[in-house]
Amino acid sequence: MSFSARGSLLFSPLTVRGLRLENRIVLPAMVTRLSGEDGLVNGDVRDRYLRFAKGEPGLMVLEAMGINETRSGPLLRASHDRFVPGLKDLVRELHASSPTKVAAQIIHFLKISRSGWRQRVQDLDRKAIEGVVEAYGDAAARVRDAGFDGVEMHMAHAYTLSSFLSRMNDRRDGFGGASVENRLRVPSMALARVRERVGPDYPVGIRFDGEEAIKDGYSVGDASLFAVRFARLGADYVSVSAGGKFEDAIHVEGEPLYPYTGYSGDRCMPGAGYPDGLNVYLSEGIRHALKERGCHVPVVATGKIRTPELAEKILRDGRADLIGMARQLLADPDWPRKVRDGHADTVVPCVYNNVCKALDERFHRVRCTLWRKHDLHAPEAPSDRAPPVWPAGARVTATGHRGGVRLEWTAATDDGGVYGYMILRSEADGPFVHVDSARGVSLRFDDHSTLGGTPYRYEIVAYDLAGNRSRPLGPVAITPEAPHG
Amino acid sequence: MSFSARGSLLFSPLTVRGLRLENRIVLPAMVTRLSGEDGLVNGDVRDRYLRFAKGEPGLMVLEAMGINETRSGPLLRASHDRFVPGLKDLVRELHASSPTKVAAQIIHFLKISRSGWRQRVQDLDRKAIEGVVEAYGDAAARVRDAGFDGVEMHMAHAYTLSSFLSRMNDRRDGFGGASVENRLRVPSMALARVRERVGPDYPVGIRFDGEEAIKDGYSVGDASLFAVRFARLGADYVSVSAGGKFEDAIHVEGEPLYPYTGYSGDRCMPGAGYPDGLNVYLSEGIRHALKERGCHVPVVATGKIRTPELAEKILRDGRADLIGMARQLLADPDWPRKVRDGHADTVVPCVYNNVCKALDERFHRVRCTLWRKHDLHAPEAPSDRAPPVWPAGARVTATGHRGGVRLEWTAATDDGGVYGYMILRSEADGPFVHVDSARGVSLRFDDHSTLGGTPYRYEIVAYDLAGNRSRPLGPVAITPEAPHG
Repeated sequence: MSFSARGSLLFSPLTVRGLRLENRIVLPAMVTRLSGEDGLVNGDVRDRYLRFAKGEPGLMVLEAMGINETRSGPLLRASHDRFVPGLKDLVRELHASSPTKVAAQIIHFLKISRSGWRQRVQDLDRKAIEGVVEAYGDAAARVRDAGFDGVEMHMAHAYTLSSFLSRMNDRRDGFGGASVENRLRVPSMALARVRERVGPDYPVGIRFDGEEAIKDGYSVGDASLFAVRFARLGADYVSVSAGGKFEDAIHVEGEPLYPYTGYSGDRCMPGAGYPDGLNVYLSEGIRHALKERGCHVPVVATGKIRTPELAEKILRDGRADLIGMARQLLADPDWPRKVRDGHADTVVPCVYNNVCKALDERFHRVRCTLWRKHDLHAPEAPSDRAPPVWPAGARVTATGHRGGVRLEWTAATDDGGVYGYMILRSEADGPFVHVDSARGVSLRFDDHSTLGGTPYRYEIVAYDLAGNRSRPLGPVAITPEAPHG
Repeated sequence: MSFSARGSLLFSPLTVRGLRLENRIVLPAMVTRLSGEDGLVNGDVRDRYLRFAKGEPGLMVLEAMGINETRSGPLLRASHDRFVPGLKDLVRELHASSPTKVAAQIIHFLKISRSGWRQRVQDLDRKAIEGVVEAYGDAAARVRDAGFDGVEMHMAHAYTLSSFLSRMNDRRDGFGGASVENRLRVPSMALARVRERVGPDYPVGIRFDGEEAIKDGYSVGDASLFAVRFARLGADYVSVSAGGKFEDAIHVEGEPLYPYTGYSGDRCMPGAGYPDGLNVYLSEGIRHALKERGCHVPVVATGKIRTPELAEKILRDGRADLIGMARQLLADPDWPRKVRDGHADTVVPCVYNNVCKALDERFHRVRCTLWRKHDLHAPEAPSDRAPPVWPAGARVTATGHRGGVRLEWTAATDDGGVYGYMILRSEADGPFVHVDSARGVSLRFDDHSTLGGTPYRYEIVAYDLAGNRSRPLGPVAITPEAPHG
């Protein structure tokens, strides 16, 4: 299926409780680790989101913002009125610079310690539960005061409301246990309180797990009931994530547990080895359950959706109403604008090696492995249309290396600097397919995914900051050694 | 989609290297724990497989059979010629009783101890590797001698060849590491040896994981390359499983590690909370990759496929060529025959509560929770066509209970005995849907999956040993208490 923005669903507007999104692309909340421990908007935070806004996704969701005073790593906060002025300035600037609508995600989390201990929802008494509910209401009101276009409640991954929804929540007092209704009780209370505080005209979204991806965790069945409840309580969209739980997190001695270190973290942010759109069955199942019950709340699909063709197909097939794109927009914030304007061939494709995830895990500032080495943001795209060129005598070589193929190539040149190289591979005279990318400084790539006895050809394409691509260097042909047997 | 066997793909034959399967239904290898530690065919083993054969699936695959002399729990064996006579008698009886074709799965596993220690493929020297390869060849030859219609090599889950394929295999000597080719080396050697030993005319299948479902494990990308290699080495079908790994297994003090106790075990045998056909994206991706490379080896999909409609749709959509059905055939071995003959309404549906899995885990004889209490096998279906009836005054009651709904009902009566009860639910005047079943002795069911404030109606249907269903008792209506908020 080839893609054209004109007539596409992806670039058709969608109105959510009076809020018009110009297209169906959503930047889901992604921790930046750019704020200080003070939780205030600073220049780095501002620059990061202004950069995203330039790409013009329909909706962007900021961070998650902490709503309780529990210590955490660097994270924006909405836990006190003192955070409002900084957020207000940021939203004003974002609105002034872009048609993108801007929501804030708000998160409540429990205590964790470096010993590996963590507080559980089972430890909360009635008063603490009421505190969680109030904190959501208060923070939502602040988000509205700050001028955001909407608020998104974080009910996904390892955090408080998600832990109430979880099948691991074995409270026996009406706030947990086998019953879906009991596990929904606190999230329902929080959503009702948020609605009460922001009023009937303000968009409220819910981000939650379609599947826990842990032993004995819930999947689409429970998640569909959660979504129905959220819709009935007036949620304006549901955004479907997966996994990211404490239960399978790997404890590093002396470090607080980080909930994306286990398999459920892989499932939350599927890496290069997983198929595109891995988690779309979750949004699909949830959307189907909603429709069956007459709930027409839009559903956001996320999880390794990177091409306009796949995004459009998901929408056409009724598997989601909006497409969340986190890592791909980190790699190239201009994806929506480029694709809309017919320049999909200048998109810098995400390679899903999860360097961004690893940085977050270590509380480092979250960057993309494809950016220039010390940059804190995706580079601005110059209006330059001259692609990189190969010097005379440039060549790419392929040699057998540790069961795979090693490629090495000559550096390309560009007036604004070469930004990166795309590695294209053809198998047995088939079409050339992008298999990975390397940052501009790297002139080597090891391909581990070859079969001995199969003929391959490789080409290298250099690209500049604007994403302009060189003519391919190569091809170079190699047939790795046939296997024993 | 309504299903008709006539004209269906599901009941069309498929010929695999000269072996004609009468339909597309495969009973995958399922450990029975019915043999003794001696690994010999006994009366229980015989009765179990004869019972399966009566249902007439196209292909049935026996156990896995151990091919090395390492101690294990009760498991059939093909590790010595002394096992051949018993297997030969069994195959002869199966063939005499049913058109079902019969293959044997052969498995090599490494040592595990009660301390939690386990031998890894990284510990095997060249001689040990050659021993694994030889053991596969020898066992395959025995399987052929015993008269089986084919042999299936176990390369899935936590066992030796799977562990070579795994991304956890970090050997640096050409038998592991990042390279797909190096991880494929030993499995390729074993397959080549098996082909050499059984000759060019004998069906050889491969069962392997389409996804490891563990942190940093492989998924469809690697799995597709594995399948291509297997096809090129002459495998006649590939059967796609998932997970079942040691890496996330839960160690119980003093017990050997059991590889289905973690999330990867849930993913291997998805329970009631998961959507039907959860793992079909794996067979789909693998089949697509095979076709792209001109390999037309049939692909078996497995993982919670229970209805003829879904099975047929998977085949029609080209997502698989054969449908594996383990737990559903354990619950009702007559599924293929009943569905073929237009009696799908007498199938006893699997409820996927994984009692069978839990029994295997404890090395207990594997039974189905729906069978009569002390039975070792699914009951024979009498030619009885009189369904159970409700006594005068029979009623079903529904009351709110711990956030859900508790149903209690009067016992039905049947000349041959009531076998079980199906619980049907209608939400908000929608159609009645089967939500669970209870064994004949149980007259109570708790529904945890209700939403407060929603009107539900319930009906109870009793069924007898032949699967004949009573008229529904009820409906009883209940609207569970509306939630707070």
